[in-house]
Amino acid sequence: MKLKVVNLLVNYKTLEEFKLFKEYGIQELSMLEDLQDNIIEDDSESPFYGIYFGDKLVARMSLYKVSAKYDRYFDPPQDYYVLWKLEVLPAYQKKGYGRALVEFAKGLGTPLKTNPRILSHEFWNKMGFQNVSYDMERDLGENPMVWFPEGVKEQHADHS
Amino acid sequence: MKLKVVNLLVNYKTLEEFKLFKEYGIQELSMLEDLQDNIIEDDSESPFYGIYFGDKLVARMSLYKVSAKYDRYFDPPQDYYVLWKLEVLPAYQKKGYGRALVEFAKGLGTPLKTNPRILSHEFWNKMGFQNVSYDMERDLGENPMVWFPEGVKEQHADHS
Repeated sequence: MKLKVVNLLVNYKTLEEFKLFKEYGIQELSMLEDLQDNIIEDDSESPFYGIYFGDKLVARMSLYKVSAKYDRYFDPPQDYYVLWKLEVLPAYQKKGYGRALVEFAKGLGTPLKTNPRILSHEFWNKMGFQNVSYDMERDLGENPMVWFPEGVKEQHADHS
Repeated sequence: MKLKVVNLLVNYKTLEEFKLFKEYGIQELSMLEDLQDNIIEDDSESPFYGIYFGDKLVARMSLYKVSAKYDRYFDPPQDYYVLWKLEVLPAYQKKGYGRALVEFAKGLGTPLKTNPRILSHEFWNKMGFQNVSYDMERDLGENPMVWFPEGVKEQHADHS
């Protein structure tokens, strides 16, 4: 079965479903406030993508495109996506939902960067991600991992 | 007893002691490689600060100063420290080591920013840190918390 990844719309149903995910935090609270204060409209596009099982959201991730002028990871410098909050609800793990989300992100045509939580490196390695050379000024408390499409390599740190 | 916070020097003893901390990662591996490759000298200063119990390192944190021109958190914009990898070894927790490290950082005369792991918000609240208004373009996957010295307030997001 091909799993279908959809862009999640900001509405009360989505925001309620988000509460089931462990990494619920101020990003979600901020979306809720923006909706309540009419700063964004009901059913606005969100930075979240997810997979439904029936009408239940069972997996999600957040994606944000960083423009080439801020790219300190890839050579040649280019637009890339930062992927975070990749999470599959416990009862639905090990069924390919996480992989389907990552494959979707890989299909966007840009390199990817993520900052894996401790102990999830194995998953990211299986997905073809690799560690970058750590650069304290750039990475600070992150241990970033990146995915390179064909023809893209790591950007060489330049502190000049 | 006043706990003494010291800047940790990069040497094989320190790097070996770091392995006892859960958040050991590519930052530490990179320091080890730089030492092995003679890119840095033995006993160079590191971005880590710690507390010894006898000659055993039992608590540590990493600090990095971000210059005012990159400040998107504080008003007026100013140099600030990012604090990460604050960790106390299990047998030494609840004895004030974490607080002593944070108080040391507060004494550096700048605001502080940290990106707490899930479930440690209560600790950071007790230390006087607060959540910022989430700004996706700036914070992405972080849920940053900040500490304001007297006279400093939150920077108002400006996407113009």
